[in-house]
Amino acid sequence: MRELRAGILGATGAVGQKFIELLADHPWFKVTALVASERSAGCRYSEAVNWIGTADIPASMASMEVLPLGGDLPCDFVFSGLHASVADHAEPHLAKAGYPVISNAKSYRMDERVPLLIPEVNPDHIALIHQQDWQSNGYIVTNPNCSTVGLTCALKPLHDCFGVKAVHVTTMQALSGAGYPGVSSLDALGNVVPFIGGEEDKLVHEPNKLLGFLDGNQLQKASIAISAQCNRVPVLEGHLECVSVQLDSNTTPAGIHQAMESYSSPIADLDLPSMPAKFLNIFDEERFPQPRRHLDLGQGMTVSIGRIRPCEVLDYKFVVLSHNTVRGAAGGAILNAELLIKKGFLHPRGNF
Amino acid sequence: MRELRAGILGATGAVGQKFIELLADHPWFKVTALVASERSAGCRYSEAVNWIGTADIPASMASMEVLPLGGDLPCDFVFSGLHASVADHAEPHLAKAGYPVISNAKSYRMDERVPLLIPEVNPDHIALIHQQDWQSNGYIVTNPNCSTVGLTCALKPLHDCFGVKAVHVTTMQALSGAGYPGVSSLDALGNVVPFIGGEEDKLVHEPNKLLGFLDGNQLQKASIAISAQCNRVPVLEGHLECVSVQLDSNTTPAGIHQAMESYSSPIADLDLPSMPAKFLNIFDEERFPQPRRHLDLGQGMTVSIGRIRPCEVLDYKFVVLSHNTVRGAAGGAILNAELLIKKGFLHPRGNF
Amino acid sequence: MRELRAGILGATGAVGQKFIELLADHPWFKVTALVASERSAGCRYSEAVNWIGTADIPASMASMEVLPLGGDLPCDFVFSGLHASVADHAEPHLAKAGYPVISNAKSYRMDERVPLLIPEVNPDHIALIHQQDWQSNGYIVTNPNCSTVGLTCALKPLHDCFGVKAVHVTTMQALSGAGYPGVSSLDALGNVVPFIGGEEDKLVHEPNKLLGFLDGNQLQKASIAISAQCNRVPVLEGHLECVSVQLDSNTTPAGIHQAMESYSSPIADLDLPSMPAKFLNIFDEERFPQPRRHLDLGQGMTVSIGRIRPCEVLDYKFVVLSHNTVRGAAGGAILNAELLIKKGFLHPRGNF
Amino acid sequence: MRELRAGILGATGAVGQKFIELLADHPWFKVTALVASERSAGCRYSEAVNWIGTADIPASMASMEVLPLGGDLPCDFVFSGLHASVADHAEPHLAKAGYPVISNAKSYRMDERVPLLIPEVNPDHIALIHQQDWQSNGYIVTNPNCSTVGLTCALKPLHDCFGVKAVHVTTMQALSGAGYPGVSSLDALGNVVPFIGGEEDKLVHEPNKLLGFLDGNQLQKASIAISAQCNRVPVLEGHLECVSVQLDSNTTPAGIHQAMESYSSPIADLDLPSMPAKFLNIFDEERFPQPRRHLDLGQGMTVSIGRIRPCEVLDYKFVVLSHNTVRGAAGGAILNAELLIKKGFLHPRGNF
Repeated sequence: MRELRAGILGATGAVGQKFIELLADHPWFKVTALVASERSAGCRYSEAVNWIGTADIPASMASMEVLPLGGDLPCDFVFSGLHASVADHAEPHLAKAGYPVISNAKSYRMDERVPLLIPEVNPDHIALIHQQDWQSNGYIVTNPNCSTVGLTCALKPLHDCFGVKAVHVTTMQALSGAGYPGVSSLDALGNVVPFIGGEEDKLVHEPNKLLGFLDGNQLQKASIAISAQCNRVPVLEGHLECVSVQLDSNTTPAGIHQAMESYSSPIADLDLPSMPAKFLNIFDEERFPQPRRHLDLGQGMTVSIGRIRPCEVLDYKFVVLSHNTVRGAAGGAILNAELLIKKGFLHPRGNF
Repeated sequence: MRELRAGILGATGAVGQKFIELLADHPWFKVTALVASERSAGCRYSEAVNWIGTADIPASMASMEVLPLGGDLPCDFVFSGLHASVADHAEPHLAKAGYPVISNAKSYRMDERVPLLIPEVNPDHIALIHQQDWQSNGYIVTNPNCSTVGLTCALKPLHDCFGVKAVHVTTMQALSGAGYPGVSSLDALGNVVPFIGGEEDKLVHEPNKLLGFLDGNQLQKASIAISAQCNRVPVLEGHLECVSVQLDSNTTPAGIHQAMESYSSPIADLDLPSMPAKFLNIFDEERFPQPRRHLDLGQGMTVSIGRIRPCEVLDYKFVVLSHNTVRGAAGGAILNAELLIKKGFLHPRGNF
Repeated sequence: MRELRAGILGATGAVGQKFIELLADHPWFKVTALVASERSAGCRYSEAVNWIGTADIPASMASMEVLPLGGDLPCDFVFSGLHASVADHAEPHLAKAGYPVISNAKSYRMDERVPLLIPEVNPDHIALIHQQDWQSNGYIVTNPNCSTVGLTCALKPLHDCFGVKAVHVTTMQALSGAGYPGVSSLDALGNVVPFIGGEEDKLVHEPNKLLGFLDGNQLQKASIAISAQCNRVPVLEGHLECVSVQLDSNTTPAGIHQAMESYSSPIADLDLPSMPAKFLNIFDEERFPQPRRHLDLGQGMTVSIGRIRPCEVLDYKFVVLSHNTVRGAAGGAILNAELLIKKGFLHPRGNF
Repeated sequence: MRELRAGILGATGAVGQKFIELLADHPWFKVTALVASERSAGCRYSEAVNWIGTADIPASMASMEVLPLGGDLPCDFVFSGLHASVADHAEPHLAKAGYPVISNAKSYRMDERVPLLIPEVNPDHIALIHQQDWQSNGYIVTNPNCSTVGLTCALKPLHDCFGVKAVHVTTMQALSGAGYPGVSSLDALGNVVPFIGGEEDKLVHEPNKLLGFLDGNQLQKASIAISAQCNRVPVLEGHLECVSVQLDSNTTPAGIHQAMESYSSPIADLDLPSMPAKFLNIFDEERFPQPRRHLDLGQGMTVSIGRIRPCEVLDYKFVVLSHNTVRGAAGGAILNAELLIKKGFLHPRGNF
């Protein structure tokens, strides 16, 4: 398979940097375009970026010239780490220009023609791409919000086995979810902020799209009642969520455990490079999972679950942990792109 | 009113130290006995204790000799900051010996003859003391667990106005709740531990006793279904709780707000020294309350509430903050003692 | 004594907010003017400010209208919490207009006609005011940088008794020193940043001005060689400094201790409201002082010292702690204003 | 080369766990004996240990039976992560029994017959082994204290080029240096503790042994005057140190930079598995190195240096960062063992 050329939109931002870090040695993709705001365009990437990663900027990208949005891009498709305010306009513009846009931005996640995708959960939703009529080969595919992804991965086996009727979720979200500089240290240190703008609304809607099914060309969303309470806690990476679920049919804690443990990922045989060895990792120790300890399981792509037990109000409760900047952002988008290749939706764009 | 002489059991522990700090300038109580384990007995208090407070040991107590459990104590009553394993035996022993025991230990909280008391919530439960037959003037009165108190204070007005049917609560609890040395810094820093031994069970049972009513000599517990998920977060003091409630009758967010705002504390006219000016403080800013900012409202005795809004699964949800070592431990016990004085249950024990 | 009317420049900033907090119940000063940028002018203070304090905005100030820089101010003098970039121009302008300016800004600290003042260290430097010829009754008085003040207070008794020849200081400075939002939580949490722009230079120069002496109208600076290494650590408030000193004459650790303990503050008999009961507090426990524990000694105005011992390279070494936003900023400026009153430099400005 | 069988003493402790983590996939060593206290002996390792690592216990070791100290050990040599109180007796006992002991304990570091070893600094000190006369093939080799190693690695090129006369060092040390549970979270969070028992003394003596030279069979220690001030800061891993040096001969900051940059490691051509690609990494950005960002350079074996500049009191100053549990403990000991193999000091112990 020929290596595909990837562009990164919003390359100097926190999500953009994570794309660069994760794509540095990717076997299928080669980063050939770094796109940022007018202010950065024309600079070498290493000069334009305030690099926040713990490793160095990958040498191959440090010296690349940053490109502006707007012109032709020397790549076969783009990853978008744009802020929604920019993505609103830029992503359809690029799709129309013929670029597949694999986006982490929230702008088009709930658009009914745009797949909102977690490969292990709803790979068939890719078919929605055919609803997108940009008069070109371009399209938009999105991954869910960082707090949605862990919850939805945990709900999927339960929804398949028992039907999920209602969900109550309280999140304890990491600081890196707010980007850089993001949260002031004076608000973060030794404190909890019980509010994250727009977050609870995403948790109400995105899982229902992700757990919906395709009825012909139409996506029928699930109709799970979801109540979310979102908190920012002084943790660097890793969103921890306390979840209670109400189910359509009866089971036991062991039944919940079994459903999760034996969940058969629909992409298990595709051998995608970013797919973790274990999609869901279930802990028996009641003090696990913990963000600092279990963040990096499966290179940050495994979703960890623990403390499965009966709920006195709904039916069962448990704890979910996922890596917010890998599985919940750049890593999730890259896995989406890998799936798109395997499914025949990503190709070389011709010479230029 | 003559000043009463107070003893402190477990005086070298974290709760004992908080008692000492809060009683240093108390207008009604004078600390005359510091009681600790055999190991400390006979030492000056300043030598026996590993003082963790931010202010100095009150001068009047620094030089007091630490007394052992077991003998006569030169005081009219005792505050107990004992661990349950010691309190199990020591508290009834002292009650039998004629000492009123105002305890923060969990040992007898759920005993049906022992009042579990929050003065602003259920002052009438004091009458249960009459069920205690120790053949002496001694008795035991308890305050609830640190994570119970904030929740119960917030539920009380709702239970009075609308009836509370079910509660879902997720706590984010401070490190000081685990005592000293308590949680290892390697577990705490930049991490969340989604488990606190025994804590969820207390949250299920204690509020139902606190919100029960006296039917003659019998306490009829409330029958609220409560589901709790308890987490330890890297915050020094202040337990934050995300609460959802299901009510018996209909209301609106404004109705919830109004019920809390206009709740009439049954002890409002008693003028107790530790009573805060405001029992419940309700925030309109959606990012409040926060532990680090609002911890000390009402000298740590005010309970803060925010983000009152509809819940998509139960009826309404909100956030509660309370100071875990003041309102949730030593301060709560002191307020109980103040109420007992006003109600005629605490007296000088005669000369000795 | 008639209460003086104080204005606060930069009232919405972090230092301005601390002025407001500390002046809320001040016996000598009444805040009558809150001055901020054009953007805030005309708004109520409570609407203009992003209040970061732990207590509420003092009620008397919450509803005051914010005034712009430039016009007449309804006050007898001003405290300046301005950024240097604004203070550069605004402070002389106000001095010329007849306002005494008690400033925390760095702009004029090293100006030879402007007193750089710590009342317990160099109250006589006030006389430099007479060198300021603004054709009016206005003048500028400054307090030192937050990292300078603790060091200088500790050096003063040593310089008096033994002569200080050289100083090596490594600082571990709190996050609040960078204002709000200041340091990103992603840089602060679980990290140390070994650089603070401009800080080391202030530590080299300011102590030499503070420890200088007045020779007629001229200030003769001290000539201590000072080497500083400044670090930002994840502490909310309180700068801790590891200091080594080389002295002109011989002594012992006990001699150092004695010099500090017996230092006679030149303002001890002035009874200034913000003067702490103890100027220098010396710890014998080798693990003290610690920021979180000893920050608030003397309402944040006491400087704490510990671990006095011989230095293998210079002569002696020790640790100093001071409260960076109280003693090191707003509290220091207020103490300066109190001294100015007692010394006859602050008066009512006449009616308007 | 045949794989050697390694035992780990103190296998359940924090250092022991780090040995296990780092040796899991080691190309030259295979862990065949896990040794811990009587209490753990006989248990499976996974049951005996309170595993604090972020990855799982390596599968090959999880099920091994823990052995007691005292009997024969099925290994060719041992790594010791024992507490000094146990190592005092156990290490010579094992050496006498014929086991090479590669120790991280402080017990024999300053013994004149025992090499205190950093392979890049003083590999020739290995020859001291010949001074050890245990009547067997056993011996003891030690690595320095976690705070010594970074400092000494930075001093080595300067001592070679210019001669180091005096050093002033202030450390900001990570919590993991205190083991588990180690520092209480109530002491650590948002605080600095300006004291670490015994640490400053190690910094005074160990570098002088490490920078000494072999005069025949005798080690002539260096005679650098070193003054250390040690602090515990709320950082998980990575010791940061502010260093000032006085040199015997003149140079410039560029000269310091050049000496460090061009330092030629005496083991550069040995190709040891744990040797980092870069021994010393020098930053030009003045806000670097930082613990959280640069901790893992060279898999935690690189020592980072930054902010090289003149010192106003001594000659030059700079900042050093090293990984305290890798380079400063288990990783350092493993590199020592690798060197011992290459130099012919480690062999299979014969059959058993």
